Amino acid sequence: MANNIEVVYTPALLPMHEVKGKTVVVIDILRATSSVCVAFQTGVGKVLPVATPEECMVFKEFDFLCAAERNTLKLDGFDLGNSPFEYQNPLIAGRNIALTTTNGTKAIKMAKELHASNILIGSFLNLSALCDKLSTINQSVILLCAGWKDRFNLEDTLFAGAVVNELSAIFETDCDAALAARQLFLSMQDNLEHWVRQSSHAKRFQLLHLQTDDVAFCLQRNTVNLVPMLHGEYIIV
Amino acid sequence: MANNIEVVYTPALLPMHEVKGKTVVVIDILRATSSVCVAFQTGVGKVLPVATPEECMVFKEFDFLCAAERNTLKLDGFDLGNSPFEYQNPLIAGRNIALTTTNGTKAIKMAKELHASNILIGSFLNLSALCDKLSTINQSVILLCAGWKDRFNLEDTLFAGAVVNELSAIFETDCDAALAARQLFLSMQDNLEHWVRQSSHAKRFQLLHLQTDDVAFCLQRNTVNLVPMLHGEYIIV
Repeated sequence: MANNIEVVYTPALLPMHEVKGKTVVVIDILRATSSVCVAFQTGVGKVLPVATPEECMVFKEFDFLCAAERNTLKLDGFDLGNSPFEYQNPLIAGRNIALTTTNGTKAIKMAKELHASNILIGSFLNLSALCDKLSTINQSVILLCAGWKDRFNLEDTLFAGAVVNELSAIFETDCDAALAARQLFLSMQDNLEHWVRQSSHAKRFQLLHLQTDDVAFCLQRNTVNLVPMLHGEYIIV
Repeated sequence: MANNIEVVYTPALLPMHEVKGKTVVVIDILRATSSVCVAFQTGVGKVLPVATPEECMVFKEFDFLCAAERNTLKLDGFDLGNSPFEYQNPLIAGRNIALTTTNGTKAIKMAKELHASNILIGSFLNLSALCDKLSTINQSVILLCAGWKDRFNLEDTLFAGAVVNELSAIFETDCDAALAARQLFLSMQDNLEHWVRQSSHAKRFQLLHLQTDDVAFCLQRNTVNLVPMLHGEYIIV
């Protein structure tokens, strides 16, 4: 019997699903999981997801780079925020990073608490590598959208839909959220950036006049050929 | 400034939204809100949503018809279940009904607890009447999908998308769930029954070999020209 694939639109809905024994893919397209993919491509050692900025800063004395974002902005006094462009800086190669973000790190911790077998990091940047990995792990899969403060968001759902679509020949699904995410992706894929620019998250960027083009960057496909995963407390590759 | 329209995919996500002062439309297409629309068309007096079958049965002695559904099935010993065909029976005209269902009555109670200004009952059957009403009430709107045991479901989302689409000239939205529901509806509307028959809820019906064609019935549009609403504890028209 084929393994099952499910989509969960926000961490608040994860407790309604059986998580134990499954592989959970954490998705925070704008921008935590995109940035983590870039960080490993740049050559960081390991990434430690932490709950709060205060906890994050503790790791300064252990020679970690400290990265903190809240409400889309880098917090004062931290080395890094949450833009993928920051994680392209060659100076971070070989360093370890402690990371806290509004939604992404919370989703990772929740999947861990609910005893997922594997926790993988997904983004459009590593879509193919992720799908290859999911097709070789013989487990059912939950695609967990980080959302925005426990609310549904468009960009994470579109990515979940892309994965469901890519793996439709291999996995079964009895999950309406997977069916809807796939159809949404299929109906928007020819103009993905247009749609994501209409999302609430992209509008938050506009309001803050963020300079870098994080939206376009995070919608690139298959620029990163690795799949970060949680091992103990750390994300590694 | 235009009023806002939001979509909430399951009652579990309602606490993330400001509900006070807004009109909430409760949506449980398969089948509670469809059946309630039919009941009023048939001429029932009032409908009392209650939490449990035990509480429901109490109203027997006050000459209510007692209706209870759990996991798609009518419970033993009750007068009615949750199929809209049962509510077409002319014998229920003039009677009052106490009703408890797996998802719909829970959603109604939650909207009440969070102090919605108005709570309306929506289904494809009364789509036009509902949209007319929403466009005359000068309030922001939350379309609350009852879902299935706090999980996302397809048919409630499609209906929410139909309402967002219908009202797009009148209401603003900054809600990704509204944007996604509308696009999902637009991409599925030409073949709505085909899609809903793929939903997890329709599959539950198949498994139980339910005789009546509740899915096709509940996807009919504008067969009911009234909008049931909560007044105190009762749903009335």
